[in-house]
Amino acid sequence: MSENLVPVELVRIVIRETSDQQYIFLKEKNGDRAFPIVIGYFEAAAIDRRVRGVDTPRPMTHDLLGRTIEALGSRVLSVVISRLHENTFYARLNLEKDDSSVELDCRPSDAIALAVQCDAALFVSEDVIDAVTGMQ
Amino acid sequence: MSENLVPVELVRIVIRETSDQQYIFLKEKNGDRAFPIVIGYFEAAAIDRRVRGVDTPRPMTHDLLGRTIEALGSRVLSVVISRLHENTFYARLNLEKDDSSVELDCRPSDAIALAVQCDAALFVSEDVIDAVTGMQ
Repeated sequence: MSENLVPVELVRIVIRETSDQQYIFLKEKNGDRAFPIVIGYFEAAAIDRRVRGVDTPRPMTHDLLGRTIEALGSRVLSVVISRLHENTFYARLNLEKDDSSVELDCRPSDAIALAVQCDAALFVSEDVIDAVTGMQ
Repeated sequence: MSENLVPVELVRIVIRETSDQQYIFLKEKNGDRAFPIVIGYFEAAAIDRRVRGVDTPRPMTHDLLGRTIEALGSRVLSVVISRLHENTFYARLNLEKDDSSVELDCRPSDAIALAVQCDAALFVSEDVIDAVTGMQ
């Protein structure tokens, strides 16, 4: 299956402590299309801390995930927002394993928190970006 | 450094949605000593879901951590609450790596969420259990 991947970057995080739903905005690197993803408070706070370079006295959950990947001799190759189905985004994490790679299904919030932490490349499939930006 | 480790089990989770502080209780397997650890809501909810066997439609952060460890060919050997310093508990995660193991510093909440998920052995150092149960 061929899949066109669009490089994107995280451009905005909107956290409202009174809401269960937080927003992050992804924008394509080589263009103007952008779209929001609704995520939970915990994940938004993790992404926000990392973007702002806020240190925590103890490793938070996504820090532990990043350190675990590193300690096991792997690294994050890329993160892909791969699918949109019934208003839910799906993502996958591509990790290095030996001379190959391994893919893991995950939520975009965890994937982006990890990408920001590890400075990993972030992509959205062309189908997804077409669908969400066409809807706006 | 020798370290006496006491096998413990998670016996209770107290979640109050109106509070930032949630409690989990660990009890030694071969005795009656028990003590609480204060953790965050997100981590308490993750532990509670796992204990009650609640499935989530998408992998939550600790699920992703467990799946990542497995996908990288490793497993959780044990989880140890290793230290208590200024009212903060410290923990470590022992992961299999090739024919050896690798240790990661982490928060007890993440360690216990993972132990519960992976059915990994949970220990508290004798020094820690002495200190906390002596204080009560």
